[in-house]
Amino acid sequence: GDIGRLVVSCTDRPGIISGVSSFLYRRGANIVQSDQESTGAAGGRFFLRVVFHLPGLRDRLPALERGFGEEIAPRFGASYRFRDAGTPARVALLVSRHDHCLLDLLWRTRRGELPVDVVQVVSNHPDLAGDVARFGVPYAHIPVTRQTRPEAERRQLDLLRGRVDLIVLARYMQVLSGDFLAGAGVPVINIHHSFLPAFAGAGPYERARERGVKLIGATAHYATEELDEGPIIEQDVARVSHRDDVLRLRRRGADLERTVLARAVAWHCEDRVLVNGRTTIVF
Amino acid sequence: GDIGRLVVSCTDRPGIISGVSSFLYRRGANIVQSDQESTGAAGGRFFLRVVFHLPGLRDRLPALERGFGEEIAPRFGASYRFRDAGTPARVALLVSRHDHCLLDLLWRTRRGELPVDVVQVVSNHPDLAGDVARFGVPYAHIPVTRQTRPEAERRQLDLLRGRVDLIVLARYMQVLSGDFLAGAGVPVINIHHSFLPAFAGAGPYERARERGVKLIGATAHYATEELDEGPIIEQDVARVSHRDDVLRLRRRGADLERTVLARAVAWHCEDRVLVNGRTTIVF
Amino acid sequence: GDIGRLVVSCTDRPGIISGVSSFLYRRGANIVQSDQESTGAAGGRFFLRVVFHLPGLRDRLPALERGFGEEIAPRFGASYRFRDAGTPARVALLVSRHDHCLLDLLWRTRRGELPVDVVQVVSNHPDLAGDVARFGVPYAHIPVTRQTRPEAERRQLDLLRGRVDLIVLARYMQVLSGDFLAGAGVPVINIHHSFLPAFAGAGPYERARERGVKLIGATAHYATEELDEGPIIEQDVARVSHRDDVLRLRRRGADLERTVLARAVAWHCEDRVLVNGRTTIVF
Amino acid sequence: GDIGRLVVSCTDRPGIISGVSSFLYRRGANIVQSDQESTGAAGGRFFLRVVFHLPGLRDRLPALERGFGEEIAPRFGASYRFRDAGTPARVALLVSRHDHCLLDLLWRTRRGELPVDVVQVVSNHPDLAGDVARFGVPYAHIPVTRQTRPEAERRQLDLLRGRVDLIVLARYMQVLSGDFLAGAGVPVINIHHSFLPAFAGAGPYERARERGVKLIGATAHYATEELDEGPIIEQDVARVSHRDDVLRLRRRGADLERTVLARAVAWHCEDRVLVNGRTTIVF
Repeated sequence: GDIGRLVVSCTDRPGIISGVSSFLYRRGANIVQSDQESTGAAGGRFFLRVVFHLPGLRDRLPALERGFGEEIAPRFGASYRFRDAGTPARVALLVSRHDHCLLDLLWRTRRGELPVDVVQVVSNHPDLAGDVARFGVPYAHIPVTRQTRPEAERRQLDLLRGRVDLIVLARYMQVLSGDFLAGAGVPVINIHHSFLPAFAGAGPYERARERGVKLIGATAHYATEELDEGPIIEQDVARVSHRDDVLRLRRRGADLERTVLARAVAWHCEDRVLVNGRTTIVF
Repeated sequence: GDIGRLVVSCTDRPGIISGVSSFLYRRGANIVQSDQESTGAAGGRFFLRVVFHLPGLRDRLPALERGFGEEIAPRFGASYRFRDAGTPARVALLVSRHDHCLLDLLWRTRRGELPVDVVQVVSNHPDLAGDVARFGVPYAHIPVTRQTRPEAERRQLDLLRGRVDLIVLARYMQVLSGDFLAGAGVPVINIHHSFLPAFAGAGPYERARERGVKLIGATAHYATEELDEGPIIEQDVARVSHRDDVLRLRRRGADLERTVLARAVAWHCEDRVLVNGRTTIVF
Repeated sequence: GDIGRLVVSCTDRPGIISGVSSFLYRRGANIVQSDQESTGAAGGRFFLRVVFHLPGLRDRLPALERGFGEEIAPRFGASYRFRDAGTPARVALLVSRHDHCLLDLLWRTRRGELPVDVVQVVSNHPDLAGDVARFGVPYAHIPVTRQTRPEAERRQLDLLRGRVDLIVLARYMQVLSGDFLAGAGVPVINIHHSFLPAFAGAGPYERARERGVKLIGATAHYATEELDEGPIIEQDVARVSHRDDVLRLRRRGADLERTVLARAVAWHCEDRVLVNGRTTIVF
Repeated sequence: GDIGRLVVSCTDRPGIISGVSSFLYRRGANIVQSDQESTGAAGGRFFLRVVFHLPGLRDRLPALERGFGEEIAPRFGASYRFRDAGTPARVALLVSRHDHCLLDLLWRTRRGELPVDVVQVVSNHPDLAGDVARFGVPYAHIPVTRQTRPEAERRQLDLLRGRVDLIVLARYMQVLSGDFLAGAGVPVINIHHSFLPAFAGAGPYERARERGVKLIGATAHYATEELDEGPIIEQDVARVSHRDDVLRLRRRGADLERTVLARAVAWHCEDRVLVNGRTTIVF
């Protein structure tokens, strides 16, 4: 409970690391891990992630945040957030019918591999209710049709707003509107079953087979209004051959999808992922 | 000198393997490796590659081909080709300024890793003449501009026609016309510096950087009239991060390009690559 | 139900493929996939796997086997087995406390990814009984101590003998005696949590961390009397760094273990794995 | 010419980053990249690598070093080194007969991919003298037999001492004595043609084939008195199959060896590799 994380971003200029690390030092925090990146000499962006040890962290976090907001942030025009590493992120999982990503995340959570609390599963189908029930997680079945999408999204937002820090689309096969994304007010991570930007959109395994690629992939990215165009968090690929028909591609790909998504969720919840325009920095 | 290869393709129907293997057996050939693929039960395509040992192969090859053409091919409507594994393929390398693929192929050839004779290098730049000279390979400098392309392609064809079994575009940065491809009359293998179909066309590393992908790739494919759309022979990828600027992507990618291209050339020259419409079967 | 598989091995000599394929052709079978390997010109071993389509296969299988045993096998001194591809292999899973391999195999089976029936789970601990019950698979808790091992193995054999085609050690942390392996009379596949032969024996992740390797691995192999020395079926690795402590290696490795084991089980049950002395041929 | 690097290691305690970054800030340096690692809370080791921009670096480096040695290093009992990123490391390459690693390093250097000056090649064979001459690098042929090893090592040391910052064994097939390593006084990087600790010692490809592994590897490590036991810098693997005989493993492996070695040399010369006991931290 005494491990904290601080993430900082601002326009690059000399003295930021010195300012931040001295601030932490003066309060008795010991930096145990630190990563930094600058995107270019003049006028570039500066990104910093610091993990520190501070006895009594939980009680001291509000004062730490306030102090940083007064002393450091204004000096550099910096955005920042502090986090208690011992507090799991509250996560909602959205899913349609494919169970592999959903169950994999639930399992990893149960095993203590992911620093999250899964507080809600939402699906446009009833199929996976039984599987989810065994993990003790509430399952909301909210059907979606073209006509009812706005209403369905409203119900989803009513259910999730204020209760979650992250929404994960664990093979949720519905497009979410910009209104939903804005209304949610938290990051949304999607898993796409191709090596983006190849095969964006529908039917990636069918198209991979037609094109005769020798590797298939999966991509976890932040969802934005533009489908499959958000900042990429993680990708991976697997070798396939002419012998692999679409069914085999789909099975091989399912293994990629679940591991890539699990990595992306873990990294996001450990504050390792910093968005830089259309791309990400992953510390 | 006693190892031969036979490649067969036709519409699938029962009895092909039996027919082919019995034909070889009756002539005293022992099959040492055989790969077969059928693309679907009814009306699918059948592909076969057989490596066999036959004493005195070189002298007996013409009679073998003739016999197969009379006895077996008509029965199944099969395309086929026999090859003496001891006869290297005659290859021309086309290159612009980047030396890594060119030199890698020359080196591997010198080491005996590739079953090829490099009989000619053609470049639209004079830069690499000295490097190529050391390998004892003729270097033709044929400049190309938008205006002179047809004339340049004619000179290239005059130089290569009938002298080569394969043309390799080893980072040749000029588009070749359909006329050239048709006139060459031999397969043309290109290396593209991305994981196709992602980043087809110009500037793939720049676009990979902008899109923030976490892996970069290289693709070797048969060149067709449609740029970067030909059947893919081989692909590979390497992990990159936010720290890799375009220069580092280019260097990391160069390692992929040369190994992917070398594999594609080796496999092609070992008759492992069979074209099936827009895709390949690689045995 | 009309797809069959035939696996043949014998001392290499001319005419085997011709003999086998003609045998199948005369009985109306169409070969849809065939793989062959010879380990060396003279006196080498010959291995063949054929997948064929034959209407009414199930009823005709006994006659096919008998015919092959009379006509073909004696001519070449060949071992062989026919299999109906539609009949799943009966599998027992042995496990201790780690759930990831076990649950992964059960899941994949439920999804129809593996051509198996899991007929029994056996564990030396009671912990996973509840998880297994949900899949409708019987769970036998057979405790093992150094003193009770012979008795425990006898109970295991009583439970499994004649009921299974394959035993899978899905992170079963007990050494099995040669008597058990002989008594079982079916292949036993083990997953070892290292890239063998590196880190054979206990504590591979601890030793990987101490040695500072940059990749960790997992190995699926046939269990033999010599611990971690049996023929390797499949291996895979993942990149790690100085930041990964033993706990993180173990988690990263768990993903490898389950996918490597699932591949090995699938390949084995599809008759793709042929043992050749201390090694395997995987078609 | 204005980019510098600073590497620091010491026993971990609060205030190091603050002290180091404030020191740099006060002198007008802007940190453009920083990596830090602590190996454990109490009594652990602290490692830091900082890349900074400082106008007029070359001239100011001596004063910077002196200042750090007076103000900062004693406070934390820290080892440290400053480096001008624009000054290439002076490197000697030792090689026997295999040319692939040697030529690859020479090529990359010529292309500007490696921040090194190759000042000398030493070989116990004359074979590669011609290839090396083309790169304008002196080639010393120093034969080694069991009897003449001490004398040969003396000649090597006479040739290299004081002239190089790094010695690279680019497939140098002779064991170097502890006396040589001590006498050289600079790090020595070796490439071993296996995935260590598997197949340490002689004949790794032969042993990989016998054991039937499904992946082969290469390992770059610092040479120590214990053969193949030094801290590992980088490793990589490639998939192989039952079809790959020892010759094919060797060729496939050669591609791994040269890329793994090139990465290790680049990272070492960019001060990314910090030795931590028997392991390395690679930033």
